Amino acid sequence: MTVSSINTERLIERIFTLGEVGKDGSGRRTRLAASSEDKTGRDLVASWMEEAGLRLVVDRIGNQFGIWETEENRGRAPVMTGSHIDTVINAGRYDGCFGVISAIEVVQALKDAGFKPVRPIMIGVFTNEEGVRYSPDMMGSVVYAGGYPLEKALATVGIDGTVLGDELKRIGYAGTVEPGFISPYAFIELHIEQGPILEAEGFDLGAVENLQGISWQEIIIEGRQNHAGTTPINMRIDAGLAAAKVNVFLRELCNASGGKTVSTVGCMELKPNAINVIPDRAIFTVDLRNPDEKTLKAAEKALADYLTELEKSDGVKISTKRLSRFEPVLFDDDIVKMVEESAKRRGLKCRRITSGAGQDAQMIARLCPSAMIFVPSHNGISHNPDEFSENKDLIGGAEVLLDVIRELSIR
Amino acid sequence: MTVSSINTERLIERIFTLGEVGKDGSGRRTRLAASSEDKTGRDLVASWMEEAGLRLVVDRIGNQFGIWETEENRGRAPVMTGSHIDTVINAGRYDGCFGVISAIEVVQALKDAGFKPVRPIMIGVFTNEEGVRYSPDMMGSVVYAGGYPLEKALATVGIDGTVLGDELKRIGYAGTVEPGFISPYAFIELHIEQGPILEAEGFDLGAVENLQGISWQEIIIEGRQNHAGTTPINMRIDAGLAAAKVNVFLRELCNASGGKTVSTVGCMELKPNAINVIPDRAIFTVDLRNPDEKTLKAAEKALADYLTELEKSDGVKISTKRLSRFEPVLFDDDIVKMVEESAKRRGLKCRRITSGAGQDAQMIARLCPSAMIFVPSHNGISHNPDEFSENKDLIGGAEVLLDVIRELSIR
Repeated sequence: MTVSSINTERLIERIFTLGEVGKDGSGRRTRLAASSEDKTGRDLVASWMEEAGLRLVVDRIGNQFGIWETEENRGRAPVMTGSHIDTVINAGRYDGCFGVISAIEVVQALKDAGFKPVRPIMIGVFTNEEGVRYSPDMMGSVVYAGGYPLEKALATVGIDGTVLGDELKRIGYAGTVEPGFISPYAFIELHIEQGPILEAEGFDLGAVENLQGISWQEIIIEGRQNHAGTTPINMRIDAGLAAAKVNVFLRELCNASGGKTVSTVGCMELKPNAINVIPDRAIFTVDLRNPDEKTLKAAEKALADYLTELEKSDGVKISTKRLSRFEPVLFDDDIVKMVEESAKRRGLKCRRITSGAGQDAQMIARLCPSAMIFVPSHNGISHNPDEFSENKDLIGGAEVLLDVIRELSIR
Repeated sequence: MTVSSINTERLIERIFTLGEVGKDGSGRRTRLAASSEDKTGRDLVASWMEEAGLRLVVDRIGNQFGIWETEENRGRAPVMTGSHIDTVINAGRYDGCFGVISAIEVVQALKDAGFKPVRPIMIGVFTNEEGVRYSPDMMGSVVYAGGYPLEKALATVGIDGTVLGDELKRIGYAGTVEPGFISPYAFIELHIEQGPILEAEGFDLGAVENLQGISWQEIIIEGRQNHAGTTPINMRIDAGLAAAKVNVFLRELCNASGGKTVSTVGCMELKPNAINVIPDRAIFTVDLRNPDEKTLKAAEKALADYLTELEKSDGVKISTKRLSRFEPVLFDDDIVKMVEESAKRRGLKCRRITSGAGQDAQMIARLCPSAMIFVPSHNGISHNPDEFSENKDLIGGAEVLLDVIRELSIR
């Protein structure tokens, strides 16, 4: 079998077609999980899956599957691929959708060529990857992998007061089969990088070998509220200044790690937040990531030690609250090598890369050997209408996906 | 004449009586300028002034005066004293009110003793010192001193959408005489310190020799919004981190000044303020103070230089907006010495001190020799229901005020 290309025109066209779904009056694209806009997107994807002759199945958490199986391979563990089509608010068109639409094209191409896979091929569209409307994110895939209770997930109350389970029923995507109803043989997800590395370094493709561990904390620093004019410097306990020192410390920690550790203070609130009052409270978040669990733990400890030191030096009181913690994920080296070899054959410049973002693949990796393929994101922009990847890169990624699925499906 | 004491019981009682005015259902004391609560307070003070036999005059900006003049001294430039009775939201009972009530007691004591001043004595209750409802603060005194246009002040729209001129009419305190209608011979204001220095260093009284210059700026730092996980450290332009560096720099600047310069970052906002997004915008305020104009200017320049440096080192764009700027005020050394000598005679431990806060006296100092007397504030707390000064300190301050007014009034 030498099927080696897909319908590239239709791939790009479908990315743009799905990208029109969920635009509001001012052109902002928003398809939050289990919303009416999500339903329109899901229905469109379902119609494409049907066009490709796939069997449609929806599980109880709303994960939507299209399965290509034959008389010969029915009952064998399938090769799974896929991603998500829910978006953030005012999103781009590629994130998630690119992986889903490419997967349909890959199956269509294999079928059209008369290819006979030894294993079924199964495309998953996972519910609520973004986690914007319902928390936590990557919900459909983590429930599928048995890492989060189904009933708890269905009972989640959204930012708009809705309950996920009710909304899934309302849009007709509350299925009956249990999540995890099929154990895949392997999983491969195609996605945009959502970061600047591939473009900046001149690569066409990323073979994603691992995924950073993520540590989210909220830190509350308490100082003493006082008059900004009448309080001498040596009598101040300035919670905002202490928070600033933490931010500066974290950057030093990242620099000392040789760029492996990344850290971000994304949210910050001072109280009382008045120009002439020394803040008695700073509430801020720390997002700390590293692809190695030991190093991530060491970074968490270094931060904790610094906070203890700060309590002594600055007289503040500090409390921390863990918001989220995911261990790093190591993807399957065999599949990563398949990605590299396909890229090489196709003349695509490929490097191994770490996923800085959370992904459905990290959840499915609990069930079976898994890996990911990244294509360059222009300027690293994502979660933004300016999100952009060049057609040649999208096509290159989809064709590598074709190669890897084909190879896995005959094992 | 040896009148040397006032009715101390009534002084304390009246501070508590006025302190009850403007409490809401949950006991929070709020008398914003030109509000109905302010009217109740003003009426109460007017009744006390009338009881003391003073002639009541209200000027067009609502400054309320009680004048004690005799056949013999009518037409001579008066000794002026006073302060304000408007408050911040959820205020203490002493700020401003203490100076007004003490002044009435001083005049009453002088009259009761048959004292014959060579000059009239005039008590001012200045409109909108706090500037909470209408901006700028110290409005009544700056208009009185000719430093801010009357019509502009009357047209000020408040945080509640009201217009100051309308509200003054509504509460019956839109007077007819022009602000500045009388040029005082000298001005002395008694006030709580609102800072911790006197108590911390064991002093009973402060002879206020100067008032810090105040420089308020809003700083906007623009960076680049990016994903907190996928963006390598060396490709980040983190506006929040740059803002943190400014905060740390300012503290170093203060430390290097030997405690003379004080600086506060009181307000801080990050955008988009999301845990996993690198902030592309930090908007924050800098409150910078020093009692010496040259040094204050040098501190402003050091900050500006640092911001320029930061634009280069961190790749951010920085813009600044001046919100407020007052030059330092040097009070009259003769009056400051009178305060010190009175304290010495009365056995009060007194030190020269700088006012860290803005005061009505700094405005009236444009018209005549002026100074202030401070009494200790417990823990330096002010603008807060926990604001507290001990009765013995309040009485000590009021008696020094008596001495200084008596002495100035026979010059």
